[in-house]
Amino acid sequence: MYRDDATSDIQQVEQLMLDLVLHETGEAGKAAAYHLSAGGSRVRALLALEAARALAVRGHQAIAIAAACELLHNASLVHDDLQDGDVVRRGRDAVWRRYGEAAAICVGDLLLSAAYAALASTGVCAGALVSRMHKRVAAVIRGQCEDIAMQGRIFSPLDTYEQVARAKSGPLLILPIELALVLGGRADAVATAVEAGSLFAIGYQIADDLEVAERDALNEKLNIVQVLAAAGEPQPRACARDLAVTRFRQAHAAATALPCGCGSLLAVQALRRSEALNVALETA
Amino acid sequence: MYRDDATSDIQQVEQLMLDLVLHETGEAGKAAAYHLSAGGSRVRALLALEAARALAVRGHQAIAIAAACELLHNASLVHDDLQDGDVVRRGRDAVWRRYGEAAAICVGDLLLSAAYAALASTGVCAGALVSRMHKRVAAVIRGQCEDIAMQGRIFSPLDTYEQVARAKSGPLLILPIELALVLGGRADAVATAVEAGSLFAIGYQIADDLEVAERDALNEKLNIVQVLAAAGEPQPRACARDLAVTRFRQAHAAATALPCGCGSLLAVQALRRSEALNVALETA
Repeated sequence: MYRDDATSDIQQVEQLMLDLVLHETGEAGKAAAYHLSAGGSRVRALLALEAARALAVRGHQAIAIAAACELLHNASLVHDDLQDGDVVRRGRDAVWRRYGEAAAICVGDLLLSAAYAALASTGVCAGALVSRMHKRVAAVIRGQCEDIAMQGRIFSPLDTYEQVARAKSGPLLILPIELALVLGGRADAVATAVEAGSLFAIGYQIADDLEVAERDALNEKLNIVQVLAAAGEPQPRACARDLAVTRFRQAHAAATALPCGCGSLLAVQALRRSEALNVALETA
Repeated sequence: MYRDDATSDIQQVEQLMLDLVLHETGEAGKAAAYHLSAGGSRVRALLALEAARALAVRGHQAIAIAAACELLHNASLVHDDLQDGDVVRRGRDAVWRRYGEAAAICVGDLLLSAAYAALASTGVCAGALVSRMHKRVAAVIRGQCEDIAMQGRIFSPLDTYEQVARAKSGPLLILPIELALVLGGRADAVATAVEAGSLFAIGYQIADDLEVAERDALNEKLNIVQVLAAAGEPQPRACARDLAVTRFRQAHAAATALPCGCGSLLAVQALRRSEALNVALETA
């Protein structure tokens, strides 16, 4: 029985996440709840809920996969902030800054473990979902390691740049739709979800780089503008914008091709972002 | 179909662990394999295999839960070494020392994720096992956080000391037997496994503290000898030994009470350790 009420669904997702991190976990649970209570867009939960609804997945399974994807994303944020030394997250102290580095490792571990626990309630298919989630987690970890290895470099070939961008955030954009596809009996379409999520992730990274291009140039951090300039591109900023628009449009096309409209939220997001970049280009 | 061949079983466990961490994981996978290849006693895998055999659990399920417990334990070692600043593990550089702190966070995450993936192959009961594993992981994380919070303290009440010792290593001693009990249809006996694993963990911590009591006293680290001295115990070392012997004997009794002899390996270990402490006491 699926409840056609997005607000109620997301509230159930929030409650499940808290239940899973607060049960007899002491200070680590409180710190995890502190992190979760700062909010965030919950895009991954919404992607899962939307895809599940489109594919007529049962309500409690939809809540479970949405919570799993969102917990996973937040686990990666807590550990990434520590690894990158980022002190602020969602307008507050990052977990490591507030609770210490050792505690932040524990909090990320707790959120990661809770993500798997969220899948447990999906029933007989839990094993298949767990297996797929591990593959995406492993890909994200590879991406994060590659990203760490590239710190201190200012240049990289464009294809390496795109590969790291894809690995860093693609898997956790793919996963919400992938899990819904499996539960909805449409695992045959997972390759299309991979395409959509990966292309979106590349577009997202380029758009993000464009926002901070000047700062990255000062700090000698790898940025798409530098990557294209080094490749001999005379107008690297405009070229980067074009590339991001292309990737978002390709992501839109792939997401639209998913069965039963289960990629419609990702498609809308991709379209909006490509349009925003076009406006920025025209007014530049 | 269960293969009555412990060597072959443990080889299959090793292979499954490597498969799960090396599949498209790049440098993080190599670092995880580096950590696993240093060996270790594999006690948790053996506890799971032994319990599964006693309870007539199917062979591939036994391998899966053994790999899951061992991966979990190794995830905790990689993150604990980083948190505690321990530079050597199993005679080699700890992962963080060799690959860097950021990479070590990724490696622990990968091992933790792989532990859940190992459970995926157990079939329709995977969800129940995942749920139980998360509860034990949460307990270990709480214990690790409490342990971190106690760093810098020299004294604590005895019951707090025992509670932290129990939480730190108890859950990962309980889990191998617990998962076998669930698969063997004897979940009713989990409370006895909890008792056996918790008491063993306390005995183990006390015995470990006795080994390093002089060093801990110099470094002003919390140690059972200090705990008992502060409680007014005139012979704190002898008293600590008595307490460890008592806990190991209690663990032995609980492990022996488990159904079908599924706790026999833990029982044997508890007995050996209590006897070793008695010998040390007599020759002291």
